[in-house]
Amino acid sequence: MKKIDKMHTFIGMDHSYEEAGVVLVGVPFDGTTSYRPGTRFAPNQIRMDSYGLETYSPYLDKDLEDVALNDIGDISIPFGNTVKALETIKETVTAIVKDDKKPFVIGGEHLISLPVVETLVKKHSDLHILHFDAHTDLREHYLGEKLSHATVMRRVHDLVGDGRIFQFGIRSGTKEEFIWAKEHTYLRPFDLDTLEQKIPSLMKKPIYLSIDLDVLDPSIFSGTGTPEPGGITMKELLNAFILMQKLSFAGADVVELSPHYDPSGVSTAVACKVIREVALLLCE
Amino acid sequence: MKKIDKMHTFIGMDHSYEEAGVVLVGVPFDGTTSYRPGTRFAPNQIRMDSYGLETYSPYLDKDLEDVALNDIGDISIPFGNTVKALETIKETVTAIVKDDKKPFVIGGEHLISLPVVETLVKKHSDLHILHFDAHTDLREHYLGEKLSHATVMRRVHDLVGDGRIFQFGIRSGTKEEFIWAKEHTYLRPFDLDTLEQKIPSLMKKPIYLSIDLDVLDPSIFSGTGTPEPGGITMKELLNAFILMQKLSFAGADVVELSPHYDPSGVSTAVACKVIREVALLLCE
Amino acid sequence: MKKIDKMHTFIGMDHSYEEAGVVLVGVPFDGTTSYRPGTRFAPNQIRMDSYGLETYSPYLDKDLEDVALNDIGDISIPFGNTVKALETIKETVTAIVKDDKKPFVIGGEHLISLPVVETLVKKHSDLHILHFDAHTDLREHYLGEKLSHATVMRRVHDLVGDGRIFQFGIRSGTKEEFIWAKEHTYLRPFDLDTLEQKIPSLMKKPIYLSIDLDVLDPSIFSGTGTPEPGGITMKELLNAFILMQKLSFAGADVVELSPHYDPSGVSTAVACKVIREVALLLCE
Amino acid sequence: MKKIDKMHTFIGMDHSYEEAGVVLVGVPFDGTTSYRPGTRFAPNQIRMDSYGLETYSPYLDKDLEDVALNDIGDISIPFGNTVKALETIKETVTAIVKDDKKPFVIGGEHLISLPVVETLVKKHSDLHILHFDAHTDLREHYLGEKLSHATVMRRVHDLVGDGRIFQFGIRSGTKEEFIWAKEHTYLRPFDLDTLEQKIPSLMKKPIYLSIDLDVLDPSIFSGTGTPEPGGITMKELLNAFILMQKLSFAGADVVELSPHYDPSGVSTAVACKVIREVALLLCE
Amino acid sequence: MKKIDKMHTFIGMDHSYEEAGVVLVGVPFDGTTSYRPGTRFAPNQIRMDSYGLETYSPYLDKDLEDVALNDIGDISIPFGNTVKALETIKETVTAIVKDDKKPFVIGGEHLISLPVVETLVKKHSDLHILHFDAHTDLREHYLGEKLSHATVMRRVHDLVGDGRIFQFGIRSGTKEEFIWAKEHTYLRPFDLDTLEQKIPSLMKKPIYLSIDLDVLDPSIFSGTGTPEPGGITMKELLNAFILMQKLSFAGADVVELSPHYDPSGVSTAVACKVIREVALLLCE
Amino acid sequence: MKKIDKMHTFIGMDHSYEEAGVVLVGVPFDGTTSYRPGTRFAPNQIRMDSYGLETYSPYLDKDLEDVALNDIGDISIPFGNTVKALETIKETVTAIVKDDKKPFVIGGEHLISLPVVETLVKKHSDLHILHFDAHTDLREHYLGEKLSHATVMRRVHDLVGDGRIFQFGIRSGTKEEFIWAKEHTYLRPFDLDTLEQKIPSLMKKPIYLSIDLDVLDPSIFSGTGTPEPGGITMKELLNAFILMQKLSFAGADVVELSPHYDPSGVSTAVACKVIREVALLLCE
Repeated sequence: MKKIDKMHTFIGMDHSYEEAGVVLVGVPFDGTTSYRPGTRFAPNQIRMDSYGLETYSPYLDKDLEDVALNDIGDISIPFGNTVKALETIKETVTAIVKDDKKPFVIGGEHLISLPVVETLVKKHSDLHILHFDAHTDLREHYLGEKLSHATVMRRVHDLVGDGRIFQFGIRSGTKEEFIWAKEHTYLRPFDLDTLEQKIPSLMKKPIYLSIDLDVLDPSIFSGTGTPEPGGITMKELLNAFILMQKLSFAGADVVELSPHYDPSGVSTAVACKVIREVALLLCE
Repeated sequence: MKKIDKMHTFIGMDHSYEEAGVVLVGVPFDGTTSYRPGTRFAPNQIRMDSYGLETYSPYLDKDLEDVALNDIGDISIPFGNTVKALETIKETVTAIVKDDKKPFVIGGEHLISLPVVETLVKKHSDLHILHFDAHTDLREHYLGEKLSHATVMRRVHDLVGDGRIFQFGIRSGTKEEFIWAKEHTYLRPFDLDTLEQKIPSLMKKPIYLSIDLDVLDPSIFSGTGTPEPGGITMKELLNAFILMQKLSFAGADVVELSPHYDPSGVSTAVACKVIREVALLLCE
Repeated sequence: MKKIDKMHTFIGMDHSYEEAGVVLVGVPFDGTTSYRPGTRFAPNQIRMDSYGLETYSPYLDKDLEDVALNDIGDISIPFGNTVKALETIKETVTAIVKDDKKPFVIGGEHLISLPVVETLVKKHSDLHILHFDAHTDLREHYLGEKLSHATVMRRVHDLVGDGRIFQFGIRSGTKEEFIWAKEHTYLRPFDLDTLEQKIPSLMKKPIYLSIDLDVLDPSIFSGTGTPEPGGITMKELLNAFILMQKLSFAGADVVELSPHYDPSGVSTAVACKVIREVALLLCE
Repeated sequence: MKKIDKMHTFIGMDHSYEEAGVVLVGVPFDGTTSYRPGTRFAPNQIRMDSYGLETYSPYLDKDLEDVALNDIGDISIPFGNTVKALETIKETVTAIVKDDKKPFVIGGEHLISLPVVETLVKKHSDLHILHFDAHTDLREHYLGEKLSHATVMRRVHDLVGDGRIFQFGIRSGTKEEFIWAKEHTYLRPFDLDTLEQKIPSLMKKPIYLSIDLDVLDPSIFSGTGTPEPGGITMKELLNAFILMQKLSFAGADVVELSPHYDPSGVSTAVACKVIREVALLLCE
Repeated sequence: MKKIDKMHTFIGMDHSYEEAGVVLVGVPFDGTTSYRPGTRFAPNQIRMDSYGLETYSPYLDKDLEDVALNDIGDISIPFGNTVKALETIKETVTAIVKDDKKPFVIGGEHLISLPVVETLVKKHSDLHILHFDAHTDLREHYLGEKLSHATVMRRVHDLVGDGRIFQFGIRSGTKEEFIWAKEHTYLRPFDLDTLEQKIPSLMKKPIYLSIDLDVLDPSIFSGTGTPEPGGITMKELLNAFILMQKLSFAGADVVELSPHYDPSGVSTAVACKVIREVALLLCE
Repeated sequence: MKKIDKMHTFIGMDHSYEEAGVVLVGVPFDGTTSYRPGTRFAPNQIRMDSYGLETYSPYLDKDLEDVALNDIGDISIPFGNTVKALETIKETVTAIVKDDKKPFVIGGEHLISLPVVETLVKKHSDLHILHFDAHTDLREHYLGEKLSHATVMRRVHDLVGDGRIFQFGIRSGTKEEFIWAKEHTYLRPFDLDTLEQKIPSLMKKPIYLSIDLDVLDPSIFSGTGTPEPGGITMKELLNAFILMQKLSFAGADVVELSPHYDPSGVSTAVACKVIREVALLLCE
C-alpha cells in the first residue's frame, strides 16, 4: 500500500535526528502565564497549520527543503510544578546540545528560554542574547515567584551578566525595570530601528535568539496572552531576518503564541512564517 | 535521548499496520459540500483533540488500549475533481480490505462512503447498511451531479439494492425522497427508537455502519455543514452503541464534522467519543 | 441572458404580494433590549441562511413551495426612538391586514408583538394569544419605561384582557410577575406539557402566535439576548407545531434571534426551521 | 451626587460580610488543568454576566434578595506553585469558617475543593460529600503529581474515608478508577437518577456540595476544559436542586467554567443560574 | 481576614472621589447605534481587562499610580429613550464639574460627547474640541433624528460654533459633510499628520478631547460598530499623545469600543492603553 | 403600501441592467481551494455588510450613486466539477461583454479570473493584466491539476503571453515560480512601490484588474483561505486606486474573501470598500 502522510512535523520536514544540524522541539508549557494561558497548544497548532506555508523564503532566498532540520515533537511536561517542568526541558535540550546540534525551541511561554540558555551558556561562555519582545521581562520577582515569564530575562542576566542581553521592541514594564535596564542590558524601546547598527558588534559572537512573538503589533499577532498595542509590523520583523543573516546562532526560541486567542488563524500563520525564517537562519 | 511523543494518531494508538485488525484512515474530502465546506479539516483536528479523551469506555466496558487498531493517517486528495478523489479513496480501501483488515474511514463529507461500500460489497455480497443521518441522501441528482453528499445513499442503493439500507434519525429531505424511501429502504424518521427491534434481523449479517454525525441534534453537534435542529441526543447515540454490540461489522465511517464551525471544540469531542465507541465495536 | 437568483427572500419564495395570503415582514428593531442587543440583524441573516433548509416539512407533511407566502422584506426603523419605531411597524401591518392578508412578523425584539396585536385586535375582537417564551414579560414598567421587551405581554394584556393570554415554557421573571399571572393569564412554567389539553378550548378562536425563540433551551438556541438555561428542546417545539395544526391563526411572530451570538450558525438554522413550520401553519 | 453602581458582586448582592451567613469567594486558580486552561477567568465573568439573571428562582420559590449572602471577591493566587496556591485558599476559607459562616467557593478548577473540605472536615467530622461531575477524579497520581484536578476526590477520600463520597453523573475515567470506586465511594454513572433514593440517608448529615459543571452535557455547557458528551440536562440538574432542599449544607463549590470556551455566553449563564440555586440552598 | 481585591475599577485605581482631580465615569449607552450595537458593554469589559496592563507609560514616562484619578463606575441608563439617557448623563457630569473635577467619560457610543460638552462649555466659554474619528459625524439629521452618533459633532458645533472643532483621521462621510466641514471645522482627512502644526494655536486653550477609537485602522481596532479600513496605526496615536502633552484638557471621552466584536481581546487592550495615556494627560 | 427595501444589491444600487455600463456579478465558487475553503459565501456577505459603507469615496472624490452600475446577483455554480463551473461563469460573462458592458466579478476564489480573461481577450487582443496578490499563482500544475487557484496566472499567461502580466505585492510561491516570472511577467515582490512608475506604460491599454485581497496584510485582511503575513497596508492599496485613475479598465475582479474566517467583520468591510473604489474606477 502507498505511503500515507501524517501531518506531524513542521511543514512535513522529514530529516532524521541523526542527519540534522538543527533540532526543533516543542515545549507546551504555560505554567506561569499570569493573564491568558494557552501557549501549551502552540506547537501542535503550528505543525498542523504549517501546511499552508511554502518551504521557500523569498526574503532569504533559501528553501527549507534544502536544509537539515529535524522536528522531534513535543516534550511531555507536568502540570502545576514549575521547577520540575524546567528540569524536564533542560534534560532534552542538554541531550541535543551534547549531540552537537542546535536547539530550536517552540513555546509555550517565555520562561522556557531559561533552561535553554542555561544549557547553551555552558558550551558558549560568551553567549549573547538577542531578545525581541513587547515586555521587559526583567522583574526580580513576580507575584512572589522568582521563576516566571515576567522575570525570565532577569534570570538569564543572572547567567550571562551585564552587556550581553540586547532587547528590542520593548514597550511595557514597570518604571523600575526600565531604569534597571539602563545599567544592565541594551534596551531599544518600541522598535527594531537600531538593530542594524548593533549587528557589527554581534558578529562572530555565539547568539541566542529569543523571539517573544508579542513584539509584533497585536494587529498582526493577536493570539497571545498579553497583547500590547503599538508593536512592530511583520515587514519590520522580516527585514530584521535579512539583517541577521550575518550572525552566527547557537540556538533560538519562538514563544508566546496562544492559538485559542487566534480565531482567524492569522497569528499561527505568523508563527509558522517566523519559524521558517529562523530555521533558515540557524541552518547555515 | 528519551523518546518524544508526537500527536499524530488517534488517542496515541501505536499498533502497527501489520498487527491491526481494524485500520483507521482519514479522508479529508469535501468537494461536493453544497452549503458550508470544511470537513477536510476533521481527521487532523480529531487526532489533535483526541488527547482529551480517555481510552476506556464505561458504556461498552472496553478499553481502546486492549484492541488492535492502526491509524494510517490521511489519504492525499486532489481538489476540484470528484471522480479522481473517489478513485484515490477506493485504491487505499481496496488495499486495506485485501490485507483482510476492516476499514474505518473518518471523513470528510458523506460521499466518501461510496468507494468504501463499493469495495466491501465485492467481498460481502450481502452487505447491509446501517445509516444514521439527519438527511435522506437519496436524491437521484443534486444540482445536476450524480456524485454528491446528497445522493450518496441513492448510489449505495445502486450497489446493494432494496431492503439493505436501514436509515435512522432522518428529518430532512425532499418529499420525493421520503416517498422513494418507502419502497426501497427502511427509513425511521426523527429518532433511533426502532433500532432495538431491527437488531435481530441484522445479526449474523455483515454490516457497514455509516454515521453522519449530523444525526445528532445541533445542540450537541454544531460543527457540521448543514445543521438540522431536532436530532437525537448524545445519550441516545451512546445507547445505540450498546445495542449494536450484538452485530458484526465489516467496516464503518464517521463523517461530516466540520471543525471550523465548532468554536467551543465540543463537536470535535463528540466525534472523538463516537470514533472510540465505533472502534471498540469494530474490534471484536 | 439567463435569470440570476438573488438571495433576498426566505428560502427563495417568489409569490407576489398580490397572490399571497400570508405576508412575511422583517422588523429589525432592538431598541429596548436591555442585555445583549443585535436582534436587528436577524431578518437578513435568516433569509441568507434559509438556503440551507428544505422547503418540505416531514413534521407537517407540507411543502412551502405549495403555499402562497410573500416576503416583502424589512421595515426601515429609526434608531433611539421607540414610539416612532412602533408607529412605523403598525403602519405596515395595518396595510397588510387591510389587504386581508395575515401578517407574519420576524423580529427583532419582542416588543414588536405589540403593534401587531394592536392591529389584529381591531379586526378580531376575540383574539387569543399563544405565547411561547422563557420570560414572563409581564412587568408594568421596566427601568422606568412602559414600552419594553420586558413589559410587552402586560401591554398586550392591556389590549385583550384577562383569560386571553396563554403562556408556555416560562422560567424567568420577578416573583411579582408570577403572582400577577395567576389572576390574569394562563401561565405554564418550564415546558409545553399542558398545551395539548388547552388545544380544544382554543379551537375556532382567532389565535395570534408569538414565539420568543428563547423558550428553547440555550443548548439549541444560544443566539439570543438573554439566554435562560432550562428550556424546552427542539423536538418538544416541533411536536407543538403538530398539535397546533388544529388551530386557526390570525397572525404570528418569531422573535429574539440575535445572530451575532450564534457563532456556529445553529440558532439561525433553528429560526429558519421554526419560521418554515409557522408559515405552513398560517397558510391553511 | 447620586450613588453609582459598580458591577462587582454576584447579581448586585450588597450584604456586608458581618451580616452574611454564607460567603461567596472566587478562586481564580487553574494551575493543574491538563487540557484547556482558563477557569481562572470564571469568577469575574460570572459576576459581570450575572446581571442578565433574575434574583428570583421559580424552582425553589425563593429570592436571592431575601437571603444573607456576601460576595467578598477573589482570592489572589500565585502562578506556577500549586502548594502555595492551596495554602492561600485554605487561609481564607479557615477565616470564613471561624467566623461561623458557610463558604461558597466559585472556581477555578476542581482541585480547589480540597482546601475547603480540609477546613470543613475539622468542624464537621461526619462531613459527607455530594459530588456532581463527568469525571471520576479518583486517580492516585496524575502525570506524576498527587495534587491535581484529576486526583481531587481521591485526596478528599484521604480526608473523609469510605462511604462518605456520593458521586453522580460520572461518565469518564480509567478502568481502574471505576473499579476503585466500587469499594470506596457511591458512584452513579451517567445520570442523577438515584439521587432521590439517596436523599433520606443524607438528611441530617452535614453535606459539602461539589458541582463540577461539566456534569452537564456540553450541549448546554461547552465552556469547560474537558467537555465530555453524554451528560445530564439543565432540567435534570434543576430538579436535583428541588430534591436537595431537604439537605443541610456546610459549604459548596461550583467549579470548572472556562469562559474563553464559551463564545455564546451560555455556559456563563448556566453557571450564574446554578450559583443562584446553590446560594438559595445554602441560605436556610 | 485579609482584604480581598475586587476588580471593579480601572487598573485597580483606588483614589477616593474626594481626593481625585479627574473622575472616570462609564456610560453604557448605545441607543442610536445604527449598524452593530454593543458599546454598552465597553466600560465593564475595559475595567476587567485593564488588569493585563501596566500602570507605567514608557511613552509619557508617567505612572498612573502617581496621579489622582477616581473611577466612580457606570451611570445607569434607560433603554429606548435617547432624550432621557442624555439627561441622565448630563446630571452626573454636571455634579463632577461642579465639584471642580475633570470628567473623563468612557463610552458607549459617540453621542455621549454631547451632554459632556454641553456641561463643559458653560464653564469654559472658549472650549475647543479635538476630535479623532474615522467619521465626520456632521450630519444635520440621521434617519430622521437630530440626536445620533452620526450627528454628534454637528450638535457640538451648535454649541461652540465655527473654528472650534479640530477633526483628524476622518475618512468616511457623505459628500455634503465634507463640503460643510470646509467652512465650519478644521478637518484633516485620513491621518494625524498636521496635528503637530496645530498644537501651538491650541495651547493655553481649554481643550475637550474626544477620541472615537474607530479613528484607528480596524487592523488594530476591529471591535467597533462600523469598522472603516484605512485608519491610523496605534503608533501614530501614541505619538499624538506625546505631542498633546503641551495642551490643557478640560475633559475627555474615549468611545465606540464594542467588545462583542473583539474576539481576540485586542481592541479592549487598545482601549485600555488609550485610556491610560489620556488619563495621564488629564492629570497634570 | 410603502415600498420596502430588500438588502440584495451592493450598497443598495438599483440601476437596471439595461442602463448600466458596468455589471457586478457574484461568483460563489471555491472548488479548487486547497487550504481553507469558504469564498463561496463572499458575494452575499459583501452585499449584506455593504450597508455599513458610505457611497461617497473621499479618496477618488466620486459617489457610487452617480455612476451606472448594476448588480445582477450570483451565478449558480455546480459543486465538485471545476470544468463545468468555469463554463457556467464564461457563459454569463460572455453575455455581459456582448451587451457592451464591463464585467466586474466578485469571487469566490482566484481561478474565476480565467473565464473572464478568456472572454475579454477575444474583444481586447492587447489586454494587459494588473494583478495584486500575495501569491505568484504561476504553477504549471498544482496537486496534479492544471486548473487551480494556484495556477490561474499561468493559465492567463497561456492566453495573453509574455510582457502582459504585471504582478504586485507577491510574497509567496515556489522558487521555480519566482524564477519563471523573471522571464514571463513583471513581478514586484512584497509591495506596490513601483506601480507609479509602471502607470505611463499601461495608459491607453485595455487593463484587466485582478485583486486577490490577500495582497493585503492579514492584520487588515484575515478572512481568506491562506493568510500570508507581510503584506501591504490598506492605505497603500487606497493610494494605488488614486494612481490607477489614469488607466482604462476593460473589467475587474476582487477575489478570495472567505467570510467565515472573519470573526470581527473587518475583512468583509475591507472587501466592500475595495469594491466601491474599483467600481468607481470602472465607471468612467
